[in-house]
This record gives sequence, structure tokens and C-alpha cells, in this order.
Amino acid sequence: MIVEANTVRFDSITLDSGATLAPVEVAYETYGELNAAKSNAILVLHAFSGDAHAAGISHESGKPGWWDNMIGPGKGFDTNRYFVICSNVLGGCRGTTGPGSINPATGCPYAMRFPVITIGDMVRLQKMLIDWFGIPRLLSVSGGSMGGMQALEWAVSYPDRVVSSIPIAATTRHSAQQIAFNEVGRQAIMADPDWNEGNYYGKQLPGRGLSVARMVGHITYMSDDSMREKFGRRLRGKENFGFGFDVDFEVESYLRYRGSQFVNRFDANSYLFITKAMDYFDLTGGRASLAAALEPARARFLIISFSSDWLYPSYQSQETVRALRARNCDVAYVELLSNYGHDSFLVDVAEQADMVRGFLSSTFEKVQ
Amino acid sequence: MIVEANTVRFDSITLDSGATLAPVEVAYETYGELNAAKSNAILVLHAFSGDAHAAGISHESGKPGWWDNMIGPGKGFDTNRYFVICSNVLGGCRGTTGPGSINPATGCPYAMRFPVITIGDMVRLQKMLIDWFGIPRLLSVSGGSMGGMQALEWAVSYPDRVVSSIPIAATTRHSAQQIAFNEVGRQAIMADPDWNEGNYYGKQLPGRGLSVARMVGHITYMSDDSMREKFGRRLRGKENFGFGFDVDFEVESYLRYRGSQFVNRFDANSYLFITKAMDYFDLTGGRASLAAALEPARARFLIISFSSDWLYPSYQSQETVRALRARNCDVAYVELLSNYGHDSFLVDVAEQADMVRGFLSSTFEKVQ
Repeated sequence: MIVEANTVRFDSITLDSGATLAPVEVAYETYGELNAAKSNAILVLHAFSGDAHAAGISHESGKPGWWDNMIGPGKGFDTNRYFVICSNVLGGCRGTTGPGSINPATGCPYAMRFPVITIGDMVRLQKMLIDWFGIPRLLSVSGGSMGGMQALEWAVSYPDRVVSSIPIAATTRHSAQQIAFNEVGRQAIMADPDWNEGNYYGKQLPGRGLSVARMVGHITYMSDDSMREKFGRRLRGKENFGFGFDVDFEVESYLRYRGSQFVNRFDANSYLFITKAMDYFDLTGGRASLAAALEPARARFLIISFSSDWLYPSYQSQETVRALRARNCDVAYVELLSNYGHDSFLVDVAEQADMVRGFLSSTFEKVQ
Repeated sequence: MIVEANTVRFDSITLDSGATLAPVEVAYETYGELNAAKSNAILVLHAFSGDAHAAGISHESGKPGWWDNMIGPGKGFDTNRYFVICSNVLGGCRGTTGPGSINPATGCPYAMRFPVITIGDMVRLQKMLIDWFGIPRLLSVSGGSMGGMQALEWAVSYPDRVVSSIPIAATTRHSAQQIAFNEVGRQAIMADPDWNEGNYYGKQLPGRGLSVARMVGHITYMSDDSMREKFGRRLRGKENFGFGFDVDFEVESYLRYRGSQFVNRFDANSYLFITKAMDYFDLTGGRASLAAALEPARARFLIISFSSDWLYPSYQSQETVRALRARNCDVAYVELLSNYGHDSFLVDVAEQADMVRGFLSSTFEKVQ
């Protein structure tokens, strides 16, 4: 299945900060067919460094999508039955308007003049896309990590527009530790002189800072166990310690490689803006309790967490479950056993796919 | 109790890499009195960023030592009974020879021409210091984190010179995750242009890189829980989000502050060399098993870990306990309940002090 990204342009969007972006573009892909009743549409929401290319083989890059093991004929999100949409988030760097986009007021990239955005803003733009499709209600919204936060935000902000929500490995608010890891990444980028207050477009990229930020990220995406299994203390291309500062261990080689590769595909300023949006995310907002904040939600929920995920630990999903149950919401929760840490939702998907398939099927029956 | 550091110089030391350092100096402090039989000496071993100033008030800085809550009259290491020695590690930057010391061959700081060192080398220099004191056998060797690794190394390398060993929050070998966090810190430093291949002495320090490295470190020293209790999502000096990249959250302010403070007291090249020594540490070496590697050990052991320590998790201490038991060694093990993560051995010491006091007392009775 060869897929291509498309782009829609809207005149403007008003943001939680009060700022307005005009115009705003959103890149998306779709898989499967929208039925006549427009009742089989599912919005899939990507994580921090993802993009609109969720499934199939990209016409542009020749690469499979980031959730290709979950989306397709007969898969968890079965494209024989459902019409799946995935768009790049606001603030991203893969087709949707972000800090690397041209600011019409200056003719130059926004860089740090891009407005600070929120998860709510990302969802607002997605809602404009769904309106543009003419889809009255989404059968489901689903994603892992930051995608799961958006799935929760959708259910609260647009309760009449979603039948169900599947937040995976997510939280209703970033904890101090989650903020701390993001802040380290931001400081690593901003410490790189090539970052140049964000004005590096067309010049030397802040690759050293972005690479360090990504290395920290990768550690948090894996588990202690999965790192032991994958790397242990194995040396890289040598039989003994080098007694120097070149790569000794496989794990060092892996992190350096993943860090340097990331520089080629991700914009450092998008890193800053998207992590900030995640840190600001707090569904409770000024409300008395999380349960009070979830009051508008009408969707059915399937909430999934993973036993070895220490970045978005199961207790965070369980907090969401308790608050939804306190509102008597229809919520199913499973903690899946996996050694892959936070990455589990991307790489260890067999059981997750079964859960999603069954949940979507029963949800779809209800709306027929 | 006002204390002063002293320094001893030795002609040379030969290192695990085969290199020789000549001369080599070691900075140390002592607390309490050595008895006539020289049977009451305890060597306390500092963690990664510690120094020889373990207890009392420094004559130089006016500050208490890093384990002042554990060392003193009536404390866990009771200076009314014992003579406590603490020295700065080889490769350090607080009086002992390290990469910032003058290389007699060039008249300039060693910088990256300093030889790569190991935990075994650190212990070798400590043993030279104990010889210099004329102490035939140490009543105990004890430390947390990297200090605990040294306590284990002592028991294996110099079994006739230690009556007991108290490794706290430690491991017999760095895991892939532990290596990974250290590698991030090293890459952050080496990515800073001011690092300048290590040649920054007398010039602009690589403060941005070192600060980012320290920020990562601090996250790993705390627990998710303790960060939630200490910071939560509290904002710093504002009532609402700033919608910018200045400090929003208390936790960001804390990390930036601790990062910038570290630059004033720690040498970036020492960061590189000491973390590398930790990563190389593997008591098993080429042996068939950890138990086989521990075969020379004759000491009594008290091994302590902390329930919320995810950087040096309890399972690592338990591996050590199993291997020592397999050699029929005298080993007591406790996992203490604490929310403070890896920092517990420094900040949550009441129960730890009781454990150490009792263990030392019974050990001391045996050698009288």
C-alpha cells in the first residue's frame, strides 16, 4: 500500500495563548475508505516525534508508517472496515505549520516567533481537519504517549464529536519527572551555539544539542530490562576496553547513532515547542478534581498502559481510569505485560492490536 | 568540628590501562583518633561528584561534609570510637591528581592526556594512602553509589586489608542503562564548543554542556515520587504559564540552578574520566560468574539498597548478596524503604545510620 501525504490550508487558527496563526496548514494521510454514512472514521494521533505517515509505504520515502503494525487490512485498526486519518501535529516539522514554516509577516521561518502551543491547540487544528472532511463524529480517536494525551483532550473538548477514545501509555498531566526530562532536552538544544536563538534555518543545524536531547529521550523510551537484553555490557567492534572516549559499548554506539539520525529528520525548534505543549498539558486545569475536569466526556474509553513503561507509568493511566469511573464513564482498562518500556505501544503490539480490534468492533456495532 | 584537607604525594602509580602517573597526589580528611593498635580505621568512599570533605565543617569553605549526618560523635560512623578517613578519588578535581592537574612532562594540565582510569585504580591509590598511614587492616570500607563499588573492589582486591565492607546503593557492574545515562552526560560535555577537546583550563569553561549533564544526573538521583512531592507541577514565580521558554515550573528552575552551580565546583574532564571508570566497572571481569569473581573476598558485608532507587535498583544489590552467599560469605542485606531515590543514602539516613552503627560495633568486637 503506497500512500501519499496531502495538505489542507485554513485561513487561521486562534490558540490557547491568545495568539493567532494565519494561515495554518495541516498535513495528513488516510487509509481505507470513508463509508457513505461517514460513521467509520478513526483519527490516529502521533507521539512526540511522529508524523502523518502512520501506515503503508510512503511514496516519498519508501518507508513504512510508524504504526504500520497496527493499521491495515485485518490489523488492530482494520482498514477493510474503517477509514483511518493521521495528521502531523501543529508545531511539527513534517508538513503541518510549525516553527520552521514561513511567517507571512516576515517572509522568513517563524523560528522562536512561532507562538507557544498546547495539546488543546493541536486538537483544535485536528478538529478543523475533521470538519473539512465533513465527518460529523469520529468512531474513535487513538494514539500513544502524546497521541494518547490528544485522545483524552478530544474526549473532553469535543465530546459530541467522538464515539470512543483509546489513550495508550498516556497521562492527563505531565509529572515533575516528565517535565524534567523534557527540560533537559530543551536545555541541550538551547546550549548549542548553532541553535542561535532559533535562527539556524539555511545554516548549520544545532545537531549536537538535538542529538544529546534525543539520546536522553531514547533511554526513557526503553526499559532497564530491554536495554540489558538488547545491549548488556557488549563492546562495539572491540574485544577489550579502548581506554579512551571513542565508543566502547554497544549501547553508546546505538545512542550516538540514533541521536545523529534524528538531526536529519526533526527540527530542533519543533522539539522545543512540542515538548513545551506536553509539559503544559493538564486536563485538570483549574478544576477541583480530575473527575470534575472529565465531566464533559461522553465517549467510551479503552485505556492501555504497559508494565515496564517508567516514563508514562501505569499509575498515571490508572488515575485516568479512576476519574472516569467516578463520572460513571464507560471505561475499559488493561495493563499489558511487556519488557519494551514506553516503546511497547510501537513495537510490542500483538495483544494491543487484539484489544483495539475488539473494542472498535463493539463500538462500531453500537453506532450502526 | 572544623576540619582541613591534607595531601600526600607518592612517586607514581601504575594503572589498569598499563599507563603510569608520576607523581600522584591524594587529598584526604580524617575524623576521630586512630587507636594504638591501629584497629579502628574506617575508609569512607565518596560518590561520583563527592570529595574528601565527608564530615565536619570545612576550614576552607565553611560547609559541612557530604556525609556529615553519618559521620561524627555518636553517629553511624561514630568518631568517638573510630578513626574515619575519606580521600578524593583519582581523576577527581578536589585535591587528588586528575585531568586538571599539571602534567610534569608539559607543564600544562593533563586535560585529555590524562590516562583513562578504573575503579580498581582509585582503590589502588587509596591502598597506598592506607599503607602510608601504617594501618594494617581497615575495620571497614564503606560508601554509596560509586563509593559502594569501591567498597566491593576493596574486598576483592585487598581481602587481607579489610575486616568488613559496607556497599550502599551500588552494583558489581554498570548496566546498559547506567552506561547510557553516563554517555549522555559525556556527549553533552563534548558537544560544548568550549570543551575544546578538553583544553579549556584558564579559558571559558564548558559550562553549558556540564550543566546539561548535571541536570540529567539530578533526575536519576531523585525518584518520580520525590520529584512529585518536592515540585509537582508548581509554577515558579508566576500564576500562569508564561507561553515562552523562560522557567515555567519549579522543577525547571531547580534543575537549571543545580546545573549552573555544578559548573563552579566540578571539572568537566573529571566528569568524563570518572564516569568512564564507573562504566568500565565489572567485578566479574573475565570470570565464569560473579560468585567466582568474589572468591578472594574474606570481609563481612553489610549491603544496603533503597526501595525507590531506580538508578542503582535493589535487584543489583541482591545479585551481589546472592553471589556472596554462594561463596558462603558473611553478608547481611537490607532494603530500606525511602522515597528519595538514589539520593536516599545521603539524605534519608536515620535507619541507615542504625544499621551501620550496629554492624560496625559487632565487627569491632570481633577484632578486639
